[in-house]
Amino acid sequence: MNRPLPVEKMVDVIKRLPGVGPKMAERLSYHILKMSEHEIDKLLDSIQKARQIIKSCSCCYNLSEHDPCPICSDISRERHMLCVVETPQDLIAVSKVKEYRGLYFVLGGALSPLEAIGPDDIKVDKLIKRLKSDCISEVIIATDTDSKGEMTAVYLAELIKKLNIKVTRLGYGLPVGGDIEYADEVTISRAIAGRKEM
Amino acid sequence: MNRPLPVEKMVDVIKRLPGVGPKMAERLSYHILKMSEHEIDKLLDSIQKARQIIKSCSCCYNLSEHDPCPICSDISRERHMLCVVETPQDLIAVSKVKEYRGLYFVLGGALSPLEAIGPDDIKVDKLIKRLKSDCISEVIIATDTDSKGEMTAVYLAELIKKLNIKVTRLGYGLPVGGDIEYADEVTISRAIAGRKEM
Repeated sequence: MNRPLPVEKMVDVIKRLPGVGPKMAERLSYHILKMSEHEIDKLLDSIQKARQIIKSCSCCYNLSEHDPCPICSDISRERHMLCVVETPQDLIAVSKVKEYRGLYFVLGGALSPLEAIGPDDIKVDKLIKRLKSDCISEVIIATDTDSKGEMTAVYLAELIKKLNIKVTRLGYGLPVGGDIEYADEVTISRAIAGRKEM
Repeated sequence: MNRPLPVEKMVDVIKRLPGVGPKMAERLSYHILKMSEHEIDKLLDSIQKARQIIKSCSCCYNLSEHDPCPICSDISRERHMLCVVETPQDLIAVSKVKEYRGLYFVLGGALSPLEAIGPDDIKVDKLIKRLKSDCISEVIIATDTDSKGEMTAVYLAELIKKLNIKVTRLGYGLPVGGDIEYADEVTISRAIAGRKEM
């Protein structure tokens, strides 16, 4: 006996979600079949509501219930600083840092030649356009520190420098609260290079 | 900045799914927000269709598009053998074995005192009722081999023996294609006890 066809179809769609393998998709599907009417309504409603209400901010491409988003429309922010991040989740992480009071720009990903993601697939053009029209004096590049994020940072830095705008990258070093024993070589070498006098 | 409220709600509902932690729930939620209208329709449709069409077989409690399910309604099967499994997924796994041509019974879980799952929370009563009314001569208990499955097997075996029905348990031993180096002590000791002359 195989799985009934409608279950097969559900497993098939669910396993395409990121981080969900075939086994997990099966487990989720059978769980969904066992959920009460109330629970399933809550799940489907929350998805549909979020998709209806959440929009992309036309200014920074952050996801928000409002356009422009609360950050872009906050007039108390320093409008000459722009922090470039890959995703809305990254924006939330950086925004927890009280010291930074500038604006943001969400690229929507990182360059990745292996996955055929080029500058046209992320919002490079829109970033450059914004830098040309707004009075930005410094761009802080806060892309991930993996190879894709690094490549994107180097690529953007070259473009932005041509506009005579200062470009900085988040500092490398040991994560706070981390154990040196478990830090990798590259991180330690960056931490040494970025050492501070005490 | 925190996540927008509708996203927060979606993350909250998704993280209650089995095997999905808070980080994964966030990742899935933001992925869902980025999916195309077509993709999201496919996801929600597949869930709704499966829930509408799939029912529990009133005879063996397997999930199926039909009631009774194709196995229970297959008159060529040996109706005096009953294999007891925990879940519909387990039933599918056992049904791949061509040698077994009997019927099934899906308990819907295993006993677990720690999680307060007792005989009334799984279909013990319904199993006993069926054994009393049907002409079953042997019950093969194919619950999981973890502590909950073992406990359930022992519990059921006692009940079933009282009905003067033969009870067997799937044999223990090394999984086929496995590496002895990685097998645990208990499995090896069971494999030695169950050794066969060559």
